[in-house]
Amino acid sequence: MLFELVYNHAMIKHFSYELQAVDGKSRAGVFNTPHGPIQTPVFAPVGTQAAVKGLTPDQLINLNAQMVLANTYHLYLRPGSEIIAGLGGLHEFMNWQKPILTDSGGFQVFSLSEINDISDDGVTFQSHIDGSSHTLTPEKSIKIQEDLGADIIMCFDECPDPHDRAYNESAMDRTHQWALRCKEVKSRQDQALFGIVQGGIFPDLRIQSAEFISSLDFPGNAIGGLSVGEKKTDMLDILDIVPGYLPKDKPRYLMGVGTPLDIVQGVARGIDIFDCVNPTRLARHKTAITRYGRLNITKKVFEKDPSPLVDDCSCYACRSYSRAYIRHLVRSNEILGPILLSIHNLHTLIDLTTDLRAAIIEGSFSNFYEDFLAKSADFGENK
Amino acid sequence: MLFELVYNHAMIKHFSYELQAVDGKSRAGVFNTPHGPIQTPVFAPVGTQAAVKGLTPDQLINLNAQMVLANTYHLYLRPGSEIIAGLGGLHEFMNWQKPILTDSGGFQVFSLSEINDISDDGVTFQSHIDGSSHTLTPEKSIKIQEDLGADIIMCFDECPDPHDRAYNESAMDRTHQWALRCKEVKSRQDQALFGIVQGGIFPDLRIQSAEFISSLDFPGNAIGGLSVGEKKTDMLDILDIVPGYLPKDKPRYLMGVGTPLDIVQGVARGIDIFDCVNPTRLARHKTAITRYGRLNITKKVFEKDPSPLVDDCSCYACRSYSRAYIRHLVRSNEILGPILLSIHNLHTLIDLTTDLRAAIIEGSFSNFYEDFLAKSADFGENK
Repeated sequence: MLFELVYNHAMIKHFSYELQAVDGKSRAGVFNTPHGPIQTPVFAPVGTQAAVKGLTPDQLINLNAQMVLANTYHLYLRPGSEIIAGLGGLHEFMNWQKPILTDSGGFQVFSLSEINDISDDGVTFQSHIDGSSHTLTPEKSIKIQEDLGADIIMCFDECPDPHDRAYNESAMDRTHQWALRCKEVKSRQDQALFGIVQGGIFPDLRIQSAEFISSLDFPGNAIGGLSVGEKKTDMLDILDIVPGYLPKDKPRYLMGVGTPLDIVQGVARGIDIFDCVNPTRLARHKTAITRYGRLNITKKVFEKDPSPLVDDCSCYACRSYSRAYIRHLVRSNEILGPILLSIHNLHTLIDLTTDLRAAIIEGSFSNFYEDFLAKSADFGENK
Repeated sequence: MLFELVYNHAMIKHFSYELQAVDGKSRAGVFNTPHGPIQTPVFAPVGTQAAVKGLTPDQLINLNAQMVLANTYHLYLRPGSEIIAGLGGLHEFMNWQKPILTDSGGFQVFSLSEINDISDDGVTFQSHIDGSSHTLTPEKSIKIQEDLGADIIMCFDECPDPHDRAYNESAMDRTHQWALRCKEVKSRQDQALFGIVQGGIFPDLRIQSAEFISSLDFPGNAIGGLSVGEKKTDMLDILDIVPGYLPKDKPRYLMGVGTPLDIVQGVARGIDIFDCVNPTRLARHKTAITRYGRLNITKKVFEKDPSPLVDDCSCYACRSYSRAYIRHLVRSNEILGPILLSIHNLHTLIDLTTDLRAAIIEGSFSNFYEDFLAKSADFGENK
């Protein structure tokens, strides 16, 4: 009883979500964490191995990044979560004093490693780095995430191909049992554990999962298993349904999504938090994200082009450099090329969420949405 | 006559060198350029392809970098100097508003390309990028450097192996003839053309070359053909002699040098300007420069080390990160690793020149010098 009082007090002190405006299904809010507030909708840059590729925290702060994501699977394997704990945790390790979110390791185990065994207990897999054998269980995932010390941590989940009904049924059941175990074993009060809804592309499974996960009263809820190879229309069908079954007074996180259009469509359906490797990955593949499409900067037509990547863009790369210069860097294998493209691409998504938030607060979201969809269709590359 | 007056006026307006303090042979001065003053001794980071590898100009300014060097050979081949001219010149192209120095292309032609023909006219060579054939002459080198628009440009020179006496005699003579032609053809008044002393490891040739180059009254003079494979004692022997044959009232530039110890030994012998790829190249090879040696950051002993690369270092990397973190980045192939090491390494050399300058102005250079040599010898890696 005393413990519960202390627990609740700590949670209230550390985490709270305030819904500031609702426009249709879209929401503007603020999620308070021990490392400061997160204004939603928010896009979180991904720092897989405790670094957003090529960028310093100073550069991320200049981009108005509010939160970064780091990957439990990668950091567990290298350098090891106990080493990070010994060095004061992930914030200290990577010198990022704003909120951090760690995933559970589940998605990477199922997508990157060779799996030797899956049981109700957990997953035994081989490291993609050196082939060494490891087992992740819900309890171990939470232990690792407590060592890392992110503000938001995730339940360990099973991530099946979204099209296989039988596998999705069993994986969902297992994910639910694992969520219970994660909640049970979690001990740090300065971390918020989010539940994850699974169920593939099957609306009835998704509803069942959303209802179960909601019943566990996590301080936030995520939708996993989307943007993993299913058709865009399947993703949107699920997003039309699931948020309605999640509590209104908790933030909703769509994992691993996405493009500008995905973010706008997600916000229109009641999503608050997004993350994706796309901005930095596309940058390494010589591609600039624009709000409504993409630009391959290596094209010959940009050889002498003095204009910025995007004409009205206010990012450091666009304020400072021509397409011709960035094309030169990329063709010359200068790492400043992907760095400048990463700055631009992250700005594009973060700036979009800022505008989405303003539109929601103003009550003009539906205009913004219709306009955005029309322009994306015109541009034709943002599908 | 009128032209000469205008020329002199323009040169006086654009470039001037003021010797502020002399302590033994060491000198503190300021070289004024159209893009601002350069306080000497100075170390210039190298931006071979119009970018200091991995760093933005903002990061260079935070390092107190006063000037960067770019390579004529590389930029002529890619993207092409006329393209850079069309985009407003190198300062605009690479968004660097402080002084820039371009080399003549000579050193790269002799070290990177396959040479087909060398004559009094110039050098015909094959591009290291695509094998295409090109000819550089003194006139063409100046034309390219005028297209690029750096503040300090260099005479086209022949760069032989420093040990071959006969070749060094003929190369020196040719370098002298080429210097005359470079001076003759130079047309921009907002660029200072520096002469280059050659002569290999042969003191008499070096004296002859220094006297000839000095007689041409360039606004600054360089020593080329050192730190190219000769013994350190040979380099120091030459540096003991050459500066005494160069005008006191012009800056002296030791091309492509060097390590912290090289810089201290150069300053002790009357050198004002240094550049070297070492800080960024060593960073890509997982090595931190310290004032008195080097640190291989991949060593296991740093796995859990919470201390900075160098204990009392004030650079961004050392203020923000542990050895353990930088080791993790480097082992994980995160490009933030070499970026942070580059920041640290450049800081180490720039900070050293700042301290050297202060010691010269205070009149305490000889103490600084003796102390530095003793510590370098103790450390034992900085040879």
